[in-house]
Amino acid sequence: MRALIPLFWPLACLLAGFAPLSSQGVIDASRAEEWRPLVPENTLYMDVGGSTVVFELAPELAPNTVRNIRTLVREGYFNGLSINRVQDNYVVQWGDPDAEDPARQRKQGIPPTLAPEFGRPAAGVAFTPIPGPDGFGEPGFVNGFAATRRDGAVWATHCYAALGVGRAESADSGNGSELYVVIGHAPRHLDRNVTIVGRVISGVEALSSLKRGTGPIGFYETAAERVPITRIRLGSDVPEGGRLPIEIMRTESASFRDYVDARAHRMRDGWFARDSGFIDLCNVRVPQRARARP
Amino acid sequence: MRALIPLFWPLACLLAGFAPLSSQGVIDASRAEEWRPLVPENTLYMDVGGSTVVFELAPELAPNTVRNIRTLVREGYFNGLSINRVQDNYVVQWGDPDAEDPARQRKQGIPPTLAPEFGRPAAGVAFTPIPGPDGFGEPGFVNGFAATRRDGAVWATHCYAALGVGRAESADSGNGSELYVVIGHAPRHLDRNVTIVGRVISGVEALSSLKRGTGPIGFYETAAERVPITRIRLGSDVPEGGRLPIEIMRTESASFRDYVDARAHRMRDGWFARDSGFIDLCNVRVPQRARARP
Repeated sequence: MRALIPLFWPLACLLAGFAPLSSQGVIDASRAEEWRPLVPENTLYMDVGGSTVVFELAPELAPNTVRNIRTLVREGYFNGLSINRVQDNYVVQWGDPDAEDPARQRKQGIPPTLAPEFGRPAAGVAFTPIPGPDGFGEPGFVNGFAATRRDGAVWATHCYAALGVGRAESADSGNGSELYVVIGHAPRHLDRNVTIVGRVISGVEALSSLKRGTGPIGFYETAAERVPITRIRLGSDVPEGGRLPIEIMRTESASFRDYVDARAHRMRDGWFARDSGFIDLCNVRVPQRARARP
Repeated sequence: MRALIPLFWPLACLLAGFAPLSSQGVIDASRAEEWRPLVPENTLYMDVGGSTVVFELAPELAPNTVRNIRTLVREGYFNGLSINRVQDNYVVQWGDPDAEDPARQRKQGIPPTLAPEFGRPAAGVAFTPIPGPDGFGEPGFVNGFAATRRDGAVWATHCYAALGVGRAESADSGNGSELYVVIGHAPRHLDRNVTIVGRVISGVEALSSLKRGTGPIGFYETAAERVPITRIRLGSDVPEGGRLPIEIMRTESASFRDYVDARAHRMRDGWFARDSGFIDLCNVRVPQRARARP
């Protein structure tokens, strides 16, 4: 396939009088129906350390855990808690710093355990593959979320900005009350070992630029270092004027396929001296753009 | 090859009465000669924003650019300059903020252009492959540096913490006076488009946790935001008591091969519910440890 491209493109350009598009060119040429809005019920707004971080949830990939998180958020469970762990090139993690102390832990109205959603049967999940190879399985996307498919299963992938559910030793110990975001090179060894429930779509830099914790695995050593979370709200509980006015390119669209190809051929952007001819799953950043208000 | 492992390991364990080692187990069982010290001439110490960041240079992969950087460092070229760009999930970059103004730019005693060292002929370079697949070529290491080999060439790979040489449009415009470090998911589309000269071996968190720049491609918008560089010194100009007392596992050793395998099989570490059975090049962190002082 790859060998055909150098033969095919010059011929196509000669015949049709067009050059392959850069990634920006693909975005500019895309059709309105190749973009989708955010669903308010599937977005979270976290006010933390003076910034707002916005997440999109992935009920397609982890329906029960997403439901638990919605319950916790509506209860105000996270309000007043803190970021307690920042490990370089790995994760930022938040929750109740007293979670392991029964006398001091914050009450929550959901069960302490939950059957893990480390992956799902691939059948029935709308998975759009992108070109491989990929050492972990077949790379692709499910409704905007990086995912991997293999042996009849599909799972959300630990790319930069992925939102995951912390757990203890036992697989069912992650109920959504302890969350983390990836802030480094994709730790894909965590795939299928924890439940991923979404990704950051705005403000990840407010998490990734936090001071690293100096305790084991990046925990802050003192309470004073913890970064307070003012509140987390569900998008549907945010007044409409305060919601993030963006739209996201549909990863099942023809333009997204062309966009991925353009990102593997960066000479189309200028500056580049060589094309890699390949892009790995976690380097594909799904295009998003300002949405004209209706 | 992969299919053999499940057959082979239980048999081996049964016969020899041992279980495959975890990554820490491999490190503990390694022999002294599988580790190497740092060469002072190939290390840089950067004092910046109250921290010290230590780099190891890779003359095996970019001899002429490394030579230029040594000259610049010995001249004190970087002392008093600043970090001017911090782009989230991408790079931290430093140099002369007035480099494009002939009247104000800092003088330097090296030529403004240099033939790029985007890659080298693979022949004669001691390359240790690790298991693929890898979409960019054959993954491996050259003396501790992540590298990729393909079509008779070998090049240093843009993994987290890689040290690269900024350049303008023309390929020969990077002489080493403008440097950057990768602080996000490996941007391997940059491979063979810029010269990589080494990597951070200590203190990368002092760079990756910096406030992100809000200007285009992460440049700080005001001079006040820039992070001053007190000085950069060559390890051989640092008094011996001030040098980083570590040693690095030889990537051509048998223990390193076993370490890479252990990192693809994390169930050996406990906690993990599943092995990925694979690790990608940029997630392999070359082991380093405190070196007993002679």
